[in-house]
Amino acid sequence: MTGTPCSAIARSMTEDPPFSPALLPAGFVDFLTPDARTEAEGVATLMDVFASHGYDRVRPPLIEFEDTYLAGAGAALAEQSFRVMDPDTRRMMVLRPDITPQVARMAATRVASTPRPLRVSYAGVCVVVSPVAAEESSRQIMQTGIELIGPDSPEADAEVMSVGAEALERLGVKDVSFDLTMPPFIPALLEESKVPEAQRAALMRALDRKDSAAVAEQGGPLASTLIALLEATGLAEHAVARLTEITLPPKARAVLDRLVDTVAALREQCPNLRMTVDPVEFRGWKYHTGVCVTLFAVGRSEELGRGGRYLCNDNEPACGLTLRPDVLFRMIPPTPARPRVYVASGADKREAARLRTQGYATLAASSLTAEPEIEARRLGCTHVLRGTVCTALS
Amino acid sequence: MTGTPCSAIARSMTEDPPFSPALLPAGFVDFLTPDARTEAEGVATLMDVFASHGYDRVRPPLIEFEDTYLAGAGAALAEQSFRVMDPDTRRMMVLRPDITPQVARMAATRVASTPRPLRVSYAGVCVVVSPVAAEESSRQIMQTGIELIGPDSPEADAEVMSVGAEALERLGVKDVSFDLTMPPFIPALLEESKVPEAQRAALMRALDRKDSAAVAEQGGPLASTLIALLEATGLAEHAVARLTEITLPPKARAVLDRLVDTVAALREQCPNLRMTVDPVEFRGWKYHTGVCVTLFAVGRSEELGRGGRYLCNDNEPACGLTLRPDVLFRMIPPTPARPRVYVASGADKREAARLRTQGYATLAASSLTAEPEIEARRLGCTHVLRGTVCTALS
Repeated sequence: MTGTPCSAIARSMTEDPPFSPALLPAGFVDFLTPDARTEAEGVATLMDVFASHGYDRVRPPLIEFEDTYLAGAGAALAEQSFRVMDPDTRRMMVLRPDITPQVARMAATRVASTPRPLRVSYAGVCVVVSPVAAEESSRQIMQTGIELIGPDSPEADAEVMSVGAEALERLGVKDVSFDLTMPPFIPALLEESKVPEAQRAALMRALDRKDSAAVAEQGGPLASTLIALLEATGLAEHAVARLTEITLPPKARAVLDRLVDTVAALREQCPNLRMTVDPVEFRGWKYHTGVCVTLFAVGRSEELGRGGRYLCNDNEPACGLTLRPDVLFRMIPPTPARPRVYVASGADKREAARLRTQGYATLAASSLTAEPEIEARRLGCTHVLRGTVCTALS
Repeated sequence: MTGTPCSAIARSMTEDPPFSPALLPAGFVDFLTPDARTEAEGVATLMDVFASHGYDRVRPPLIEFEDTYLAGAGAALAEQSFRVMDPDTRRMMVLRPDITPQVARMAATRVASTPRPLRVSYAGVCVVVSPVAAEESSRQIMQTGIELIGPDSPEADAEVMSVGAEALERLGVKDVSFDLTMPPFIPALLEESKVPEAQRAALMRALDRKDSAAVAEQGGPLASTLIALLEATGLAEHAVARLTEITLPPKARAVLDRLVDTVAALREQCPNLRMTVDPVEFRGWKYHTGVCVTLFAVGRSEELGRGGRYLCNDNEPACGLTLRPDVLFRMIPPTPARPRVYVASGADKREAARLRTQGYATLAASSLTAEPEIEARRLGCTHVLRGTVCTALS
């Protein structure tokens, strides 16, 4: 018999395909070895670098009351937050989409009286309603980062970024670019130059699109300055050289000079770091008040991390940097697996323990009858321990 | 002026106290240093021991579809699961209250074809609607554990427990007791002894209460056996000696002998482990099919962990053990902090880097004017680095 039975055709035309539910929701995945190990060990490496610069680990909870979490810096995250009701208090709680607002809350409460500069680090999982960027699919996000709360100086900005750069280097992430921006600069320049309120939105859009023609048309007396700024982007030292030549009103100049000073301070810390500067960029920064940075790997589109200067709880100078281990770990080789030793039945337990202290994984025999070499190979072992003798499989 | 103003009294009688919302929901807390560090490093230590015995790390997601998660071993967890709707599929998702059902799911899917014995380990955070035990308050739970899937033998049971014991020892948890039970034993005995269905519930309750008088009254021809079993509890070797003397019908004897054999296999692995046996205990074990274990520290009431034998996905022999790092870390000294070095302005960067590799935390000066020694003390440093010279503060 050939062809398709009529009943099947009828069904395919009138019904949905047979229900085949996805095993896991989009954006929530299982990690196996070595990915799970690489991520966990990568986070530990990052946290180790942070700790070596005096950043003390904090661990805020996965869930908070909605009104507490969204009250401060979390407000912008309302749409990204899953909510559940606390059956005890009947208050709504959010599953955190971001750890940084929690660190700000802690800075104003539990560690309010800890001496400044306050250096804290964190690592933990977050959940977002939708992937945070077009090139991403994850809704479960691993975040790790640092906050330096108290000082407000180019050196403080540079410390946070240089610690981040050292952490990435230790992790083995190569060809990272630190892309620096100063989001308050263009708004400050338009304000100081008295660009009429009504023209600013269109001008900002043109600058955001890097559209020189539109900027020339809409920039009025500021057009040539803005076009010079558009051109003063790229590798940091090149951009800085051009930026110093541009004539600016004094307040805008001061804002821009802070960017220039931060570049110098970061260069002092990291002589070989790839840095770019874009003085015109402002998109995607909402509550930042100073230099911001986005980390990319050359040739890849996902952000590796981001950070910048802001006012913690609207009153305390702070600079932070958040890294994304779940993105980073895809760029590094998996952490090496321990070589595996099959421990034949009756083999010496002390020798097995000694092998473990030397970095081997020992797998106890689970069959008394199977030939140890065959079992060892089947289980991915490279060695067999018989009695007190450990033999490499050829 | 003394006494309470009338208006305050009136308000206290007629109104609720002034609204003062708790900062965090009950059971969700902030950890600071050293607790946050101790927990994270404790988890890493446990995972390291698991890996050294060939247990490969997996990382299932925080969130799953409700119907997938609750379909298998997760069914008993429905009441403990917070739920949110996936806006894309409109299907309900659960925030996992337990990782072990996810490992079972993975054993039947992603790692279904991995050779057995399958050894997996996991560490991650879970959220429960209510604290899991009366003596606890946490609703955010850290879980870490292992599963040994495939073999069904006393040696496999003993492997899982002995790896758990080694992990606790490495963590520095002292005076742990492994309390072994065999939940299927009493039901098997009552069945084989043809105790009428109608009498079993009352008899089980009497056994559960360890109420010898009620057992004697309701036990019928089995009364003396059951009382002997009630008395055969306590330290493992003592209990086993008594259990071997009790006459039992053959199937019940076989079930009990498996407990006895597991005790012997575990003693072989762990000559000094404190083990107790209670052959009559069955409460709190729902889907377990063999030997179970609960871990306590002598003199403390919270469980440190639990595990036992079950049928993974209702068809594959498995034995697992889950530890609770969030309970464990309260029982061990905090992991030592790095000694802190204040790096005076202009000090040698290479020397600071060298100190970091030696285990120091170096704190960059954030003030050019402050006296380094004063700043160092204020920030909890024990050393100051000036130039290339690191000096301990007296």
